[in-house]
Amino acid sequence: MQKPSPFKTTGSRIAYSNPWMSVREDSIVRPDGSEGIYGVVESKDSVIVVVVNDKQEIGFVNIFRYPAQSWKWELPGGGGEGEAAVEASKRELLEEAGIVAGHWVELGMTRVCNGFMTERQANLLATNLEYQTATDGAEGIDVFRFISLEQVDEMISVGEIDDGQSLAALYLYKNWLANNK
Amino acid sequence: MQKPSPFKTTGSRIAYSNPWMSVREDSIVRPDGSEGIYGVVESKDSVIVVVVNDKQEIGFVNIFRYPAQSWKWELPGGGGEGEAAVEASKRELLEEAGIVAGHWVELGMTRVCNGFMTERQANLLATNLEYQTATDGAEGIDVFRFISLEQVDEMISVGEIDDGQSLAALYLYKNWLANNK
Repeated sequence: MQKPSPFKTTGSRIAYSNPWMSVREDSIVRPDGSEGIYGVVESKDSVIVVVVNDKQEIGFVNIFRYPAQSWKWELPGGGGEGEAAVEASKRELLEEAGIVAGHWVELGMTRVCNGFMTERQANLLATNLEYQTATDGAEGIDVFRFISLEQVDEMISVGEIDDGQSLAALYLYKNWLANNK
Repeated sequence: MQKPSPFKTTGSRIAYSNPWMSVREDSIVRPDGSEGIYGVVESKDSVIVVVVNDKQEIGFVNIFRYPAQSWKWELPGGGGEGEAAVEASKRELLEEAGIVAGHWVELGMTRVCNGFMTERQANLLATNLEYQTATDGAEGIDVFRFISLEQVDEMISVGEIDDGQSLAALYLYKNWLANNK
């Protein structure tokens, strides 16, 4: 049994909306009795894929991230668009990397930013890879590259990889590895 | 040298704002030449702390997360409020857990949600603990508990811990452990 909410919601409105996300602003009473608002960012659930080749290297995309205004090495992924997570991941992987994976494992669901967002992230593992041609030109993705886990950790240690969503997926992947030796 | 942005920004407005975050909506030209908008969630940078006691157990808070409408086990943390990350973490740790830590290590900076947010997360390790009384009643925090890393991974495997920000911090902590044996 889950404990009840210590917050009360006394009103709600959509304060902002675009095709990818909206902000719902609720009127609330906090646990200490004070009144206020809570702005909740609502977006589609997302998928992120740990793509592993037969050398045990992990696939990363180099993608320009508009909010950070910089290029980032990240695991491939994207918005779920309402499909089952594996189907969404297959499409993202083909679009972003031109890869078709023959074997998929669900590593678990995580939440991206519990203080602000409703978004849940489906973390998947893809192996048994076949290579085709990437199809997506609109997302600002430049390179797809396989990187050894050792080098990934070196890049993380110096901040060359700093995407928290990728680190959450890699955490689940390392736990999966430890349980599937 | 960083590659240039493949996006062009042709306009910008604040579309929504509350005391904790705002949404900046930019008019853009995408890499493929199509025009559109990009909604960027701007918030203060945050801190998250891996608090480790002398049994090598990790401190978790049980906190009601309004966007998810459920209680979550998470590493303690919160908004940076412009202070240096370690100072912000000390305040959060005292507020949420009544703990004063004698030793701090910066585990690195990560980004919370590169597709939507500007928020960066400072990940810290706190050890050499002294225990006082928690002071914060407004945030909906119920319990602070130390959990062994083995049990943490069990809770993650069944979804009892699903906070991606906590997993990113734990990833950095495990790498730190591997390098500091």
